[in-house]
Amino acid sequence: MRGGGGAATARLAVAARAFSSAGGGVAMVQGASRGIGLEFVSPPPAPIHIPPHFAPSGSPVPAISLHPLPCGSGGQVRQLLRRRDQGRVVATCRAPGSAAELQKLKEEHAPGRLTVLPLDVTDETTIEAAASSIQETHGSLDLLINSTGILSIPNVIQPETTLSKVQKSSLLLAYEVNAVGPILVIKHMWPLLKVGGRSETGRGFSLVANISARVSSIGDNGLGGWHSYRASKTALNQLTKTVSVEFGRKDNIACILLHPGTVDTDLSRPFQRNVPKDKLFTREFSVQKLLSIIDSVKKSDNGKFFAWDGQEIPW
Amino acid sequence: MRGGGGAATARLAVAARAFSSAGGGVAMVQGASRGIGLEFVSPPPAPIHIPPHFAPSGSPVPAISLHPLPCGSGGQVRQLLRRRDQGRVVATCRAPGSAAELQKLKEEHAPGRLTVLPLDVTDETTIEAAASSIQETHGSLDLLINSTGILSIPNVIQPETTLSKVQKSSLLLAYEVNAVGPILVIKHMWPLLKVGGRSETGRGFSLVANISARVSSIGDNGLGGWHSYRASKTALNQLTKTVSVEFGRKDNIACILLHPGTVDTDLSRPFQRNVPKDKLFTREFSVQKLLSIIDSVKKSDNGKFFAWDGQEIPW
Repeated sequence: MRGGGGAATARLAVAARAFSSAGGGVAMVQGASRGIGLEFVSPPPAPIHIPPHFAPSGSPVPAISLHPLPCGSGGQVRQLLRRRDQGRVVATCRAPGSAAELQKLKEEHAPGRLTVLPLDVTDETTIEAAASSIQETHGSLDLLINSTGILSIPNVIQPETTLSKVQKSSLLLAYEVNAVGPILVIKHMWPLLKVGGRSETGRGFSLVANISARVSSIGDNGLGGWHSYRASKTALNQLTKTVSVEFGRKDNIACILLHPGTVDTDLSRPFQRNVPKDKLFTREFSVQKLLSIIDSVKKSDNGKFFAWDGQEIPW
Repeated sequence: MRGGGGAATARLAVAARAFSSAGGGVAMVQGASRGIGLEFVSPPPAPIHIPPHFAPSGSPVPAISLHPLPCGSGGQVRQLLRRRDQGRVVATCRAPGSAAELQKLKEEHAPGRLTVLPLDVTDETTIEAAASSIQETHGSLDLLINSTGILSIPNVIQPETTLSKVQKSSLLLAYEVNAVGPILVIKHMWPLLKVGGRSETGRGFSLVANISARVSSIGDNGLGGWHSYRASKTALNQLTKTVSVEFGRKDNIACILLHPGTVDTDLSRPFQRNVPKDKLFTREFSVQKLLSIIDSVKKSDNGKFFAWDGQEIPW
């Protein structure tokens, strides 16, 4: 396992942040799917939507390999909700209707604290619809977390161990979900982020945090393999940097990239064999670490790539 | 213009190398299209094949923005052919039949010196067919140059000046042509490269050179913009590095990335406005520089990214 599997926790970090320290601000957590494991997702996993041109058979496939969305996660989000009674959160996932735990959480809290919207990063119309809905309900965004990610789905995409296993369909699917999706979300949320970031959030600027992974670092790539995942996340890094340059020139918005470490989740489980015990984090630990980065980030960090421990990762 | 337009020349460099210093070896120049301008391509440009899912109208579009393939280029290739009477070259392009100048060149030289094969990086079956053909005719490859590239095609893809102009279709098309294509070519040529690189070529190992561009550097990205092109070439860098790790472990093959500088070609012309005169190279100058890199590269350079002047480019 080369560090890509911990992104799960990042979404929790995001949710945590949204609830814990955004004050009166509005935070959006974009990810997709449920099924990061029973510990997080109480309702049975709904089938993943694979874009038709990638689905080998058209049949639903298990959801364990898409990064989780905290929108469906039960206990921990509830715990975080208790920490603050300020801050509104927009959680997006592909099928809010089947995220029973999330709906329950929504009912347990004051009206407006938690909004759940459908969003599928492979379908731009759903991104536009989510932006319109947030515009109408909240009028601005202070924090946007892009946590969509795909690593492996049986019979669809697998981390490649050798060049001879590289498939065009895997390269394109990973790119569409891991790189194209987040950038389209930023594109459509941009107007909301422009008017966000007011002082009431305590940060003074809007923040976009894209969940990347250390395996996306070209300079750090000493192991090879994982072609589709690596290349898509490396492209996400470049796209984030590109966007950060424009934001730095025009707007009161910063963009950062985060690597959550290797976290013990369903996502990483098939690849944990070679991970030393002390490098395999619990969700709680990684969440805590990512929270502290998101809490302390400065405007001058715009365009940077941080690991869970706050260290910058080389490109 | 941020340096992406000079890749045209790189293909020439490749052809030059194939003819000038490969000795008795076999060099393959993979690119696609003609239409880099009348100076290079005598036959009228044939329509570009855009994958059906990207073609806005299904109608053919001008070919100026796909990186050129030297397979169609007249005078300079002929000049290079004169320099050596050793070395066999396989030039691939999408429609060899309409590359009249190339067919003429083929006739002017000894049988077997120049082979022209059809290859479209967006159609993997043509890559496999080319590999089979080279296996049958030559049995090995000593040098493979991947020079496919797409930057702009009117009404299909344009270098983006702002996030608000980023289109999903452009991101995916650039990725398919600039990143996925070259890697699939390496995948299928791998068995031929494994048995190439014999001492008769003077190098002692097989070489893969992928044409990248300085704008792909994340660390060097101070201008922003060009999202689709940047991200696709950055992904190509990561894929090349990933492949180089595996080759370094198993095979007598090295992979490098090359940035040809900004060269005065049709590709770069729409973007030359802000290029200082002394930074806009003639094709001859860039070719000369790239040739000297390809000639002097060592096995220990495996996985590196060089500019036209031999300087390493940061990731």
